[in-house]
Amino acid sequence: MDDRLARATLMRVAEPGDTVMGRLVALRGPQTAITQIRAGIADPELVRWFATVHHRPTGSQRPRPPSSPDERRARVTTRLDRMITTWAARLETADAARDLTDGERVGARLVTPGDPEWPTQLDDLGDGRPHALWLHGDADLRFSCLRSVAVVGSRAATPYGTHVAAEFGAGLGGRGWGVVSGGAYGIDGAAHRGALACGAVTVVVLACGADVAYPSAHQQLFAAVRAHGVLVSECPLGAHPTRLRFLVRNRLIAALTRGTLVVEAAVRSGALNTAGHAVTLNRHLAAVPGPVTSDTSAGCHRLIRQGRATCVTTPEEMIELVGAMGADLAPEPRGPVLPRDLLDPQTRRVLEAVPARAGAGPATLAVAAGVDLETVLSCVGYLAAAGYIERVSKGWRLRVHRPAGD
Amino acid sequence: MDDRLARATLMRVAEPGDTVMGRLVALRGPQTAITQIRAGIADPELVRWFATVHHRPTGSQRPRPPSSPDERRARVTTRLDRMITTWAARLETADAARDLTDGERVGARLVTPGDPEWPTQLDDLGDGRPHALWLHGDADLRFSCLRSVAVVGSRAATPYGTHVAAEFGAGLGGRGWGVVSGGAYGIDGAAHRGALACGAVTVVVLACGADVAYPSAHQQLFAAVRAHGVLVSECPLGAHPTRLRFLVRNRLIAALTRGTLVVEAAVRSGALNTAGHAVTLNRHLAAVPGPVTSDTSAGCHRLIRQGRATCVTTPEEMIELVGAMGADLAPEPRGPVLPRDLLDPQTRRVLEAVPARAGAGPATLAVAAGVDLETVLSCVGYLAAAGYIERVSKGWRLRVHRPAGD
Repeated sequence: MDDRLARATLMRVAEPGDTVMGRLVALRGPQTAITQIRAGIADPELVRWFATVHHRPTGSQRPRPPSSPDERRARVTTRLDRMITTWAARLETADAARDLTDGERVGARLVTPGDPEWPTQLDDLGDGRPHALWLHGDADLRFSCLRSVAVVGSRAATPYGTHVAAEFGAGLGGRGWGVVSGGAYGIDGAAHRGALACGAVTVVVLACGADVAYPSAHQQLFAAVRAHGVLVSECPLGAHPTRLRFLVRNRLIAALTRGTLVVEAAVRSGALNTAGHAVTLNRHLAAVPGPVTSDTSAGCHRLIRQGRATCVTTPEEMIELVGAMGADLAPEPRGPVLPRDLLDPQTRRVLEAVPARAGAGPATLAVAAGVDLETVLSCVGYLAAAGYIERVSKGWRLRVHRPAGD
Repeated sequence: MDDRLARATLMRVAEPGDTVMGRLVALRGPQTAITQIRAGIADPELVRWFATVHHRPTGSQRPRPPSSPDERRARVTTRLDRMITTWAARLETADAARDLTDGERVGARLVTPGDPEWPTQLDDLGDGRPHALWLHGDADLRFSCLRSVAVVGSRAATPYGTHVAAEFGAGLGGRGWGVVSGGAYGIDGAAHRGALACGAVTVVVLACGADVAYPSAHQQLFAAVRAHGVLVSECPLGAHPTRLRFLVRNRLIAALTRGTLVVEAAVRSGALNTAGHAVTLNRHLAAVPGPVTSDTSAGCHRLIRQGRATCVTTPEEMIELVGAMGADLAPEPRGPVLPRDLLDPQTRRVLEAVPARAGAGPATLAVAAGVDLETVLSCVGYLAAAGYIERVSKGWRLRVHRPAGD
């Protein structure tokens, strides 16, 4: 059984992100791993590692400390044996050869570590690195992700959120940055569409098989992505999305990109899970602020308040964050310069003192403005010339149609 | 001439925030200062200080360096002499005694440093400290500002901005915090009204005389503030607002409070001037985020991006920032805990594997969920009891009316 076939098999045997299997493969390579599983052997090296890292199924409660070393060893082996039994059970039903032909039939390609299209940044995932990826689409995954950003957020997005996500998708895509997301409703979809709208490359990382379009209402979107981008999945063909697969998928979105942008997220949102992965992987994390009256922005604001995410308001600012230092600086937002601002402070003070209707003489202006007479005389000359004021019988007054002030 | 009368006079002689006059008063006291001005004497001490600090009228271009020490000395004295001439001119027209009686007539009171009602935090302004303040209203200024926050923002506020400003005004006031602002249209007015709405104390710092209601459309608001708070002005009675006075007034708003909150501000806004004063005075600075599509929030977002302002979304968060450390902590925003989340990961995996209609046996579930048979058997028992799944002829399937999941 060759490496590709072995890895295709492992996709069926272990759940995505299973770090124990990842470790076994890292230790012995995919083929040996499968042989061991079939034979029901617990690799001694793996047992040692398993024991040292106190490996526990993700998130489960910490068990009571073992009473003796023996009990400890026993526990570890039992837990590991259970896993191997599980893997073995799945191994029996796995048929990688058929998967490869099926993939070919639907037009998907299997990419494994070492292939030119393999995105090496996934190595940052360590033992959690996928065994292989199913890709479906014309774009080259590695190239698409060299300069890419993840744009994620709530499925239950507001019109504001979807508008902003689309703007960022288009703005990033238009500046040559790939837009990576999960292809879900709301923010994800809007970001992909924004990128597509300006003919840019976009990458959808699925939580299901590359041949399973989920959500099915995004059939057309996925078709467009296959034409101008690429669909990515670490699940076997035909696999259906589960909550766990969504969470595990998010680490890929974070790992593939230089940074993650959260556009809209409630304080409880899958997008925050992706944000967490981005931080763990030392990727940049940014969040778009929104109305404080909107619950779907509360998650973004919390990330900003905690100092975990940079507050980003434009695609340029996002590019400045993830781009090459100095090379991709965003323009500082500036207001218009008003003619009045070009006046030096003394002249401005005199102008302030000039009445609207009545008209006042230089002496009065001097006292009112708090400057001396000579200054007043030189200023009024300038101000009249600049069209701010005009001479009337009783002295000087503001002109009706003077240059706009703020 | 007593101290009060002298200070009342100085209010007419120098523009608010004139640090040169401030320095003179600091050196010689108000009475002597006036005597010197009337006599046209440039105090030698003041000349020395003036020369050392290279004092220039605020914001004016830096003049070409003096060619010789003599020219330098000459320049300084000329500039200082000019100022004294200006002050003298105003001194002639000043009539503090009448001001005091006028103030009494309109119901305003003059408060000077040393008075019990004087807010000593104004000493942080150094030479820019006001000589005295005209107060108009029933509240005690010093007490009102002990635990107070400045809520400022654009006059041209959006409905979002005014809504949020009112919410903060009420939220802060309701928690015993004084709300200080400029009484302008938009954010200022909304903040004052919010505080008044919950019977809290609010302070309006005017850029005009305490007897001049500006903007005049806020007559009623100011009447309400006089009844439940206090109007503050460092300008002489009858003084009209000028752009410079607005800018100088802002330093008082910042200095009176523990922190400044910018609710809405374009990248060019007087509110950012107040923000700058807050930073200079080592007060807390916070900004409320808003839609990135709104120019009136761009100034707030820039402050947050620059790390100058803390991102604040609720009154509690503002109080946490300016309040006593530990004593005024804001609650972390949390989402609801969903029953599904109470399941341990293995049970959740099994639940994910249970089909919606057909029904599947434990062995199938074990393979699908990637757990061993015993685990499945224990989990389905629990899940059935918890009402997630039900037994059917072909095994287990999801119940239609199961507890809500996310």
